[in-house]
Amino acid sequence: MSPLNFTHTLTQAVDELSKDSSYQSVFHQHVDGNPLPSTQALREVVELSRAIIFPGYYGHSAVNSCTVSYHIGVNVEQLFTLLTDQVVAGLCFSGKDRCSCYATPQRERAAEIAAAFISYLPELRRLLATDVAAAYTGDPAAQSQGEVIFCYPSVRAIVNYRIAHQLLLLGVPLIPRIITEMAHSETGIDIHPGATIGEYFCIDHGTGVVIGQTCIIGNHVKLYQGVTLGAKSFPLDRNGQPIKGIPRHPILEDHVIVYSNATILGRITIGQGAVVGGNIWVTQDIPAGGRVVQSRAKK
Amino acid sequence: MSPLNFTHTLTQAVDELSKDSSYQSVFHQHVDGNPLPSTQALREVVELSRAIIFPGYYGHSAVNSCTVSYHIGVNVEQLFTLLTDQVVAGLCFSGKDRCSCYATPQRERAAEIAAAFISYLPELRRLLATDVAAAYTGDPAAQSQGEVIFCYPSVRAIVNYRIAHQLLLLGVPLIPRIITEMAHSETGIDIHPGATIGEYFCIDHGTGVVIGQTCIIGNHVKLYQGVTLGAKSFPLDRNGQPIKGIPRHPILEDHVIVYSNATILGRITIGQGAVVGGNIWVTQDIPAGGRVVQSRAKK
Amino acid sequence: MSPLNFTHTLTQAVDELSKDSSYQSVFHQHVDGNPLPSTQALREVVELSRAIIFPGYYGHSAVNSCTVSYHIGVNVEQLFTLLTDQVVAGLCFSGKDRCSCYATPQRERAAEIAAAFISYLPELRRLLATDVAAAYTGDPAAQSQGEVIFCYPSVRAIVNYRIAHQLLLLGVPLIPRIITEMAHSETGIDIHPGATIGEYFCIDHGTGVVIGQTCIIGNHVKLYQGVTLGAKSFPLDRNGQPIKGIPRHPILEDHVIVYSNATILGRITIGQGAVVGGNIWVTQDIPAGGRVVQSRAKK
Amino acid sequence: MSPLNFTHTLTQAVDELSKDSSYQSVFHQHVDGNPLPSTQALREVVELSRAIIFPGYYGHSAVNSCTVSYHIGVNVEQLFTLLTDQVVAGLCFSGKDRCSCYATPQRERAAEIAAAFISYLPELRRLLATDVAAAYTGDPAAQSQGEVIFCYPSVRAIVNYRIAHQLLLLGVPLIPRIITEMAHSETGIDIHPGATIGEYFCIDHGTGVVIGQTCIIGNHVKLYQGVTLGAKSFPLDRNGQPIKGIPRHPILEDHVIVYSNATILGRITIGQGAVVGGNIWVTQDIPAGGRVVQSRAKK
Amino acid sequence: MSPLNFTHTLTQAVDELSKDSSYQSVFHQHVDGNPLPSTQALREVVELSRAIIFPGYYGHSAVNSCTVSYHIGVNVEQLFTLLTDQVVAGLCFSGKDRCSCYATPQRERAAEIAAAFISYLPELRRLLATDVAAAYTGDPAAQSQGEVIFCYPSVRAIVNYRIAHQLLLLGVPLIPRIITEMAHSETGIDIHPGATIGEYFCIDHGTGVVIGQTCIIGNHVKLYQGVTLGAKSFPLDRNGQPIKGIPRHPILEDHVIVYSNATILGRITIGQGAVVGGNIWVTQDIPAGGRVVQSRAKK
Amino acid sequence: MSPLNFTHTLTQAVDELSKDSSYQSVFHQHVDGNPLPSTQALREVVELSRAIIFPGYYGHSAVNSCTVSYHIGVNVEQLFTLLTDQVVAGLCFSGKDRCSCYATPQRERAAEIAAAFISYLPELRRLLATDVAAAYTGDPAAQSQGEVIFCYPSVRAIVNYRIAHQLLLLGVPLIPRIITEMAHSETGIDIHPGATIGEYFCIDHGTGVVIGQTCIIGNHVKLYQGVTLGAKSFPLDRNGQPIKGIPRHPILEDHVIVYSNATILGRITIGQGAVVGGNIWVTQDIPAGGRVVQSRAKK
Repeated sequence: MSPLNFTHTLTQAVDELSKDSSYQSVFHQHVDGNPLPSTQALREVVELSRAIIFPGYYGHSAVNSCTVSYHIGVNVEQLFTLLTDQVVAGLCFSGKDRCSCYATPQRERAAEIAAAFISYLPELRRLLATDVAAAYTGDPAAQSQGEVIFCYPSVRAIVNYRIAHQLLLLGVPLIPRIITEMAHSETGIDIHPGATIGEYFCIDHGTGVVIGQTCIIGNHVKLYQGVTLGAKSFPLDRNGQPIKGIPRHPILEDHVIVYSNATILGRITIGQGAVVGGNIWVTQDIPAGGRVVQSRAKK
Repeated sequence: MSPLNFTHTLTQAVDELSKDSSYQSVFHQHVDGNPLPSTQALREVVELSRAIIFPGYYGHSAVNSCTVSYHIGVNVEQLFTLLTDQVVAGLCFSGKDRCSCYATPQRERAAEIAAAFISYLPELRRLLATDVAAAYTGDPAAQSQGEVIFCYPSVRAIVNYRIAHQLLLLGVPLIPRIITEMAHSETGIDIHPGATIGEYFCIDHGTGVVIGQTCIIGNHVKLYQGVTLGAKSFPLDRNGQPIKGIPRHPILEDHVIVYSNATILGRITIGQGAVVGGNIWVTQDIPAGGRVVQSRAKK
Repeated sequence: MSPLNFTHTLTQAVDELSKDSSYQSVFHQHVDGNPLPSTQALREVVELSRAIIFPGYYGHSAVNSCTVSYHIGVNVEQLFTLLTDQVVAGLCFSGKDRCSCYATPQRERAAEIAAAFISYLPELRRLLATDVAAAYTGDPAAQSQGEVIFCYPSVRAIVNYRIAHQLLLLGVPLIPRIITEMAHSETGIDIHPGATIGEYFCIDHGTGVVIGQTCIIGNHVKLYQGVTLGAKSFPLDRNGQPIKGIPRHPILEDHVIVYSNATILGRITIGQGAVVGGNIWVTQDIPAGGRVVQSRAKK
Repeated sequence: MSPLNFTHTLTQAVDELSKDSSYQSVFHQHVDGNPLPSTQALREVVELSRAIIFPGYYGHSAVNSCTVSYHIGVNVEQLFTLLTDQVVAGLCFSGKDRCSCYATPQRERAAEIAAAFISYLPELRRLLATDVAAAYTGDPAAQSQGEVIFCYPSVRAIVNYRIAHQLLLLGVPLIPRIITEMAHSETGIDIHPGATIGEYFCIDHGTGVVIGQTCIIGNHVKLYQGVTLGAKSFPLDRNGQPIKGIPRHPILEDHVIVYSNATILGRITIGQGAVVGGNIWVTQDIPAGGRVVQSRAKK
Repeated sequence: MSPLNFTHTLTQAVDELSKDSSYQSVFHQHVDGNPLPSTQALREVVELSRAIIFPGYYGHSAVNSCTVSYHIGVNVEQLFTLLTDQVVAGLCFSGKDRCSCYATPQRERAAEIAAAFISYLPELRRLLATDVAAAYTGDPAAQSQGEVIFCYPSVRAIVNYRIAHQLLLLGVPLIPRIITEMAHSETGIDIHPGATIGEYFCIDHGTGVVIGQTCIIGNHVKLYQGVTLGAKSFPLDRNGQPIKGIPRHPILEDHVIVYSNATILGRITIGQGAVVGGNIWVTQDIPAGGRVVQSRAKK
Repeated sequence: MSPLNFTHTLTQAVDELSKDSSYQSVFHQHVDGNPLPSTQALREVVELSRAIIFPGYYGHSAVNSCTVSYHIGVNVEQLFTLLTDQVVAGLCFSGKDRCSCYATPQRERAAEIAAAFISYLPELRRLLATDVAAAYTGDPAAQSQGEVIFCYPSVRAIVNYRIAHQLLLLGVPLIPRIITEMAHSETGIDIHPGATIGEYFCIDHGTGVVIGQTCIIGNHVKLYQGVTLGAKSFPLDRNGQPIKGIPRHPILEDHVIVYSNATILGRITIGQGAVVGGNIWVTQDIPAGGRVVQSRAKK
């Protein structure tokens, strides 16, 4: 079918869709002409970070200890360039002033943030090594740490979270959320970049896990698939809009275990070493060492 | 290892796998030689639609209001071409007659459907703007509408659903389901294209949500992750095959909220403004303004 | 921003990240210089297998019965080559000896395994045909077997599982897990390659399903989304490490149905024809024909 | 620099360039909306033909005699499809009637031509084998026939010419010239598809060779680089346009050798076994066995 | 073979090659850290220009007159962006000051140049239409203007030359030469961007043609393959370096024809309507209407 | 057009083309199942070498002196790997024994050759710097050494030649010729890898230049476009095959200049500082300081 017969229909739709009133009134926050973050570039940012942190596992499979610095060097330089551009886009996106994102100060600030992120990479590697160790120790099916790094979706989700969380601390808007949502899409694990998570963190299987923005999670915590650490309700302001930034998600102290599909809601505290059974709904504090399970099923 | 030593094994397997009896008896519905839909092309169909609906967010990041019609024009034309081809493939797939899909009438009908879909794009943009607004208003963690459009998996799932639903209404077989399954894979949200969903629809986090074929959902409804709107059971015909097309999924009226991992089954009605608590199993009507929660957990 | 001003920061980070003490102590199992499996190549392995098993649905859309053997022949040969390489990488990964993976015997063994896998393809096609039939028969929304093959995530997950399971039986390390995790990422269905699963297996919707390493599942079993077949707890050895390989996941006999978000834990047996209701937590045997549901919700 | 400041300049240029009067009056032969040949597709047509003719040298480097039919089969089928489409585009390009190229008869004719071309492939292989043999025998620097097939630009140019010439004989417009111009670009050898060339044809080095439309070249002819077989002058019609199709290029009988940069012009005959020296200008017949060289240079 | 055994050799070579003394002393003009032009981007610049000038022939094969402005609009905008970046790189390359190329004024100037180039496109189209007409009229083998646009290497070379020449007039360094060298590589026609060439310019076959920097060519001039319009000798300055910019190439007046492989050297004038025979060496003026041919060959 | 109607024609052609007698008798030298060199990989070999030799000009445009060793390191390692594989393929190609190319000794030898080539890179850079200097000094149109490196086809041709020549000296079959033919295709300059060429070598414009296998060229030699340094005739052995390896091409001593389209044939010597005029045919020695030009043209 040649498109010619339908040209009138098409050009009419184009005219309607190009009217300012059609798209600008509804999506009014987009400043005309500014660059937007690129999902593709951010994907590379994550891949480069992963290749730097786990040399030999990602990015170039046959690294040896004599030449590893070449590969890390090239990756670090490329990461710096890509991340600087994306941080500029993030800063522009949240900025009010249209001209800002082409000005030198914005780029200078973005480059400082990217350099600070790169300085953080050794600590990031150390932290992720604790997460890998926790996953390996906690899973009888794991054959090796390499298998954990290579295959486990929870490692992928935690890598993205820890990158995103650091960028958030460095003051980058929008980008952190895009990075955690990438992992969400790949793993079904949804960790908000604002959450605070300790060492030796482990999620088994992981699909359906939700960890909210103001969660605080200690060390050696383990979650199973389908666990929600969510908000119970949230106060609205005078305009009926939710008030931003209020602590509204749970605190999990060290060594807590939460079994599959449990839902923990609100700013409650699950005490050190507590165990939360599967498929239950928790809205009140659980003391240290406590244990809750579902009421018995009906046969 | 050269493949030569194993040539006999390989050619034997090829012979066995190429026998008609091996593949035609089991997959007998595929009409020999007809084109099949292309997942790659349908992915582009969705990306083009998204670029047209959210100019500046997808497809070309630096659109300005003077040149936006160029970009929308090119995208609309390409969408028309790609969609026409895919609709032809969909029509052929479900057709009985082998020759049909190369005949002019089939292509003519496909082009009409594609043009009708393009005429629907302005309305689709309006509807999706309500969904974006609902997500932004309903999430204290959302920083801007732009962040919602850019990052939220629920927006991605609802875009695909609304495209697919319209194609279904236009009489296109197979394609709508492929489009919603793409979003299912990316977001863990499984909305059947046959479901009917009102304005200002919002899914928080989303992984594990299932919305069945005959669901009817009103305006301003909000679902959390892991919610199932499913069928309880379904009658079989005389051959033991399920009878197609019987209404068997829930009706959710306006302003209903369903919390995480709740399961609502069967052709029941959840009345206006009702709230369904998390991790529960609902198989009976809930009146307007009603509220159900899980029985207390056992400590 | 030119990267020049930050060169010192970058080179310092590179030096720190390239130190042996930084990465080798933590990720010590990776033998220097050996090849690692390639996710990209394994993705092609799965796609080629799928194209061979479902001719006309994947890989080349217009196959006809006269030329099908050409396409299957080329695909089988390419599958053999790719799979041999990946099996070598898998064998090296788990090996202790650094030189082993370039030696001829390793490649010879890998080629034998790849050839054995190819000989298994006709049986794999037969098994998958039963799974497709089960999905089609069990879903009133399914329009055709073709739609099931094309769109249903459960088919995708089961294809990957059955490939991975066979490779595991043939003695391949690591690779099987990577293959099932690919499907996990795409579908949210997490089937361990070690599980044993009978014919006519069907998962509806699927997101959030977890099937553990030592599960045994009979014929004609059906699971809904969010179902966990997991371990309750696992014994540790003297070093506090979990003991590998102990049977610790459920046995589901023929014709069992498990509804959405149910969690079944431990080496228990769900008897033939039993029905497990949604959103419940099961840790004890259910007799043949038994039925358990959640206790009533509280209004 | 944001493009915004220059938007007016750009939109003005777009308006001017989009006016019918600007492009339609000058390029008036292009029928609105018809498909045009694709250089990319024609490149694949040539590569597929080469892979079929020289199995193991192009397209798939490790073919063995047991599986070669799989590869040839797949390549032949793909060649048929691609070539049919391109022949349609060629027929439409030269057609007067706008609708013709979507009508079934045009596609039917194109498919017949493509099938006829495929039936010609065995003869094409035989012919090219004589050209390879001639190049190998005639060059002391050639190490093997494989090196000739792999490296010699003359082989590349002659492959394209022989493909193009056959398509021309089958009545395909435009496409043959595109195919020879591809080789012209890659090798600097410009053979018009209309020329008639015998067996065992050989061009050494080749850059700058020109062989005109109405040339007739016998068997065992050898040309060196820079040789022109051109037209001397051509009669004009009453409108001052050159008259098409008049024989105006040289005839070279069997076993002629022409050395580098010689220029032979007009419908003259170079007799059997004649030798033409380098850097000379020939506009008159040379008898069989004749020999001409440049007049002596001046020191 | 693992690279491990050769690590010492490799790292030693890297050390030697990374020494400043090794590469900076010899290639000293490259300012550390500045961007360089991208051949890939310039290739796109040429392709976009070609798509804009010949709508329907390049870039998108099925343009129709209702939607042509969409395509031209998108192409013009993209051309502006790409060209601005490349002009910046060109300006930096020739600049002395390292910081200059990140400063706003450089980008502003580049954008002005790019906009000026875009304003020139309608005139460029008009000029090229005369070249296409000359090629079509002058070649009895040409079937249509479309064939000329599509297939003739001379059109490709002249397009690149005319783009490059205009960029040179606009003050862009380096880039013009890269653009003409692209065409040189593809066609064997080497036109220096500094040459001045009138309307209705035509090169037949073209391989081996060289047109020097200070050539002046009138209207309706025709060259055949292998023609050189070169310099005879050039004066050196006191340091023995050639003096730049002195007129040293021929002037060809209107309606001159030069046959294949003729070499015309020095600042001489070939008068209006003169004909230069093939394979000769001309270093003195030829009067209007004159005719020179090679001395007779020796049999 | 569905391919179905023509299936018989296609399968018949496939059968004929797959017969051993059709392709094995004519192309008998190809050992069944051995790998062949990959043009794509060799293209990368050349690009990596170029990026290492001219840091900042090729491969990564913003290298600075602090990070240059990272880039060179990564490129050297990758070059080693790619080159080793290609050398193996080259050795197998010329080998008689089918099994040889999978044996460890072949790979070991290939790796030694690749390492030796890498050790040669610093010397290669030094040599090429003299060629760049010669081109810059000798061309009044050259604006900078950077322009010469970036744009001049002669540099491209000489880079490939010098790489190929060194590989030939290291005993690699086939590959060197493929590498020089790549440059031949891109530049129209055909230098046989066996030729011996001194420092400060320069080719102006270059299209059509041919330099034969046994040429010996001194330092500071300059050639113009279209120059042939060829063989006059070559003795045949008893079977009528040309005898390989006999010196049969010219010797050019230091500071020789050869103008465009001159043809110099046979094992003659052009003495130091001699000048050969354009478009002439030279088959006898020219003494040092000599000068020959074409006999005067006829008006």
